[in-house]
Amino acid sequence: MGDPYPGTGAESSDRDLLDRVLLTRVIEPGDEVGGRWVREFGVREVARRLRGEGAVLPGVSGKRWGGLRARAAQAEPARDLAVARDAGVRFVCPGTGEWPGQLDDLGDARPLGLWVRGRPSLRMWALRSVAVVGARACTAYGAHMAATLAAGLAERGWVVVSGGAYGVDGAAHRGALGAGGATVAVLACGVDRPYPRGHTELISRIAQQGLVVGELPPGDHPTPSRFILRNRVIAALTRGTVVVEAAYRSGSLVTARAAQRLGRHTIGVPGPATSALSAGVHELLRADAVLVTDAAEVVELVGGMGELAPDRRGPVLPRDLLEPAARRVLAALPARRSAPAAEIARGAQTTEDDTIARLYELRALGYVERHGDGWKLTRQAMISVRGGPSGC
Amino acid sequence: MGDPYPGTGAESSDRDLLDRVLLTRVIEPGDEVGGRWVREFGVREVARRLRGEGAVLPGVSGKRWGGLRARAAQAEPARDLAVARDAGVRFVCPGTGEWPGQLDDLGDARPLGLWVRGRPSLRMWALRSVAVVGARACTAYGAHMAATLAAGLAERGWVVVSGGAYGVDGAAHRGALGAGGATVAVLACGVDRPYPRGHTELISRIAQQGLVVGELPPGDHPTPSRFILRNRVIAALTRGTVVVEAAYRSGSLVTARAAQRLGRHTIGVPGPATSALSAGVHELLRADAVLVTDAAEVVELVGGMGELAPDRRGPVLPRDLLEPAARRVLAALPARRSAPAAEIARGAQTTEDDTIARLYELRALGYVERHGDGWKLTRQAMISVRGGPSGC
Repeated sequence: MGDPYPGTGAESSDRDLLDRVLLTRVIEPGDEVGGRWVREFGVREVARRLRGEGAVLPGVSGKRWGGLRARAAQAEPARDLAVARDAGVRFVCPGTGEWPGQLDDLGDARPLGLWVRGRPSLRMWALRSVAVVGARACTAYGAHMAATLAAGLAERGWVVVSGGAYGVDGAAHRGALGAGGATVAVLACGVDRPYPRGHTELISRIAQQGLVVGELPPGDHPTPSRFILRNRVIAALTRGTVVVEAAYRSGSLVTARAAQRLGRHTIGVPGPATSALSAGVHELLRADAVLVTDAAEVVELVGGMGELAPDRRGPVLPRDLLEPAARRVLAALPARRSAPAAEIARGAQTTEDDTIARLYELRALGYVERHGDGWKLTRQAMISVRGGPSGC
Repeated sequence: MGDPYPGTGAESSDRDLLDRVLLTRVIEPGDEVGGRWVREFGVREVARRLRGEGAVLPGVSGKRWGGLRARAAQAEPARDLAVARDAGVRFVCPGTGEWPGQLDDLGDARPLGLWVRGRPSLRMWALRSVAVVGARACTAYGAHMAATLAAGLAERGWVVVSGGAYGVDGAAHRGALGAGGATVAVLACGVDRPYPRGHTELISRIAQQGLVVGELPPGDHPTPSRFILRNRVIAALTRGTVVVEAAYRSGSLVTARAAQRLGRHTIGVPGPATSALSAGVHELLRADAVLVTDAAEVVELVGGMGELAPDRRGPVLPRDLLEPAARRVLAALPARRSAPAAEIARGAQTTEDDTIARLYELRALGYVERHGDGWKLTRQAMISVRGGPSGC
């Protein structure tokens, strides 16, 4: 049994990482059999057996096992990590600092890891996020509603998550970006390989101002089942899923039903009863989903009581535990007024995109809030600085 | 204390009727104080006191009592009944044969009686009826949905009740009429005095093929509060209220909320979230109303389980207790196939409008069902004729 990663001089923790990356090449997203192997045997042992060093893993046919073995033999995890690094992509493993804990609700269908492009902390951003999804071939009405809802969510300090597709997804991402807001695209392919092609520019922009995320290793391509299984990540990552337009049997309904199973809010935007592109949403609304017509109604649902009384929620992380970049942005906020992101960026001596990334992290932690087009310290953040509200 | 109705030679039961008609001139629709008087003292005693023969009735100011007394002094119930009779209008009293018992759910706000124009039995028709209401200034979409829903309800043997107004109401009536169906207009004025004027033709047509109903005596005019209070009758008469389009604070929402309080189904048709004319409906749908997009979904709700298994419900009234006119129409139905109303009318030697009136009564009683454009005997009706299904 030779060194599986000869010449890399990999430490034990690096080997864990390399083995996990190998598994992302072998086990399909959402494969619960693979997830059970990892839970029962551990990443190292599963990778070892897939390399042929040990017994066959349980629950698969001989033919399927042969296919998995062949994929494992072709995998080059060290190369994948290098390619990713060159493309500005990091690999976030379950249980590590940036891992969004709510993904663990997926059980054995939890991603083996997430490839992430973009500055902000995925974990921080996902804390206050909502999915806005819907039909690719949406109507002008659907595109308008997606963009308006996303802009409204961004203006209220919420992160908009979608799938980067044409139609509703694209309109939602653009609506958030246009409002100087935070948006995350969860792709069904390698995050270095934007899909659809026509959204190459948009996905680059999202990676600049927000996050592009996916389960599949660099260069990997989407398939119909990967699109469907990607949807469980969108549902699990967010506090609720808003479906804007969806025909019967639309993939967006898969996301909505996954949200429901995971105990997230399932939300629908109504449309004309005569529109086939609203038929799927109306079906949801006739079941358990909640009807909304604007961003305030979405926030009322996903924000819970805290949203109605923001003053009562203080920062959840002490200031000296913040990342240095976030601390610099926090320090650049004026004491008694709101300021636009560009002004804060100058004070923090960083880019506006980076500043927005940090502001939404600080928002998730309760330090700052949006105020019109600008940002200001929360009452609780001022108390934690001065030991009392200003003037007391 | 002289005879209040000198020269009419009225019997005691006629005097009850005349006193009740007098009260419809004095007590406003939905006035619960007046309703309590009638419940506690009886119609005769309330009328006697309003004529000044006895103590002041409780719960009103001296000024208001004076106003009621003045109205009572001007009332001419015998003339009202004569005018009504000449206009083909009958007065239906609570507890009599044609009274729809479900109106008793209104308690002290129950109508003192209903003025009715048209052939069919109000009681029979109301058994299987649904209200379709909405904005006067509706959009083309609202008019289309109202007409389509009403036609679909009519085709399924349901009676469409609405308020005779412009917009959604008119579209609903026309949709039912156009499908050779049954429709009831509940007016906020005397039923001999169509309102709005622009619907004179439509309301005449409804009185020909269906029913025009109201609480107010002949010649009386509508007021804003009468429109609002009329809505409780629409809500109470029907198994459910469907709101098609309604702005915030629309009168249709009053009907929907009355339906909810009365334990009837409250139902809404969604529209674009951007439409102010759907905002009121969406507000209902965010509360307790059920979203529907077509007539089948309405029937599924209001019909209950029986609707899903119509074969299991037999006639609710023995054939020999039917009115002669209904018996003739029933006898004119072919044994083993469906027939259009015109053909049945020829067999029953009556008009098509009268035939439709009887067919919807027979439908409510479980004898017949609609089948495409025609009508046929139900399985249960055939069993009750022959003592067994055909061929057994």
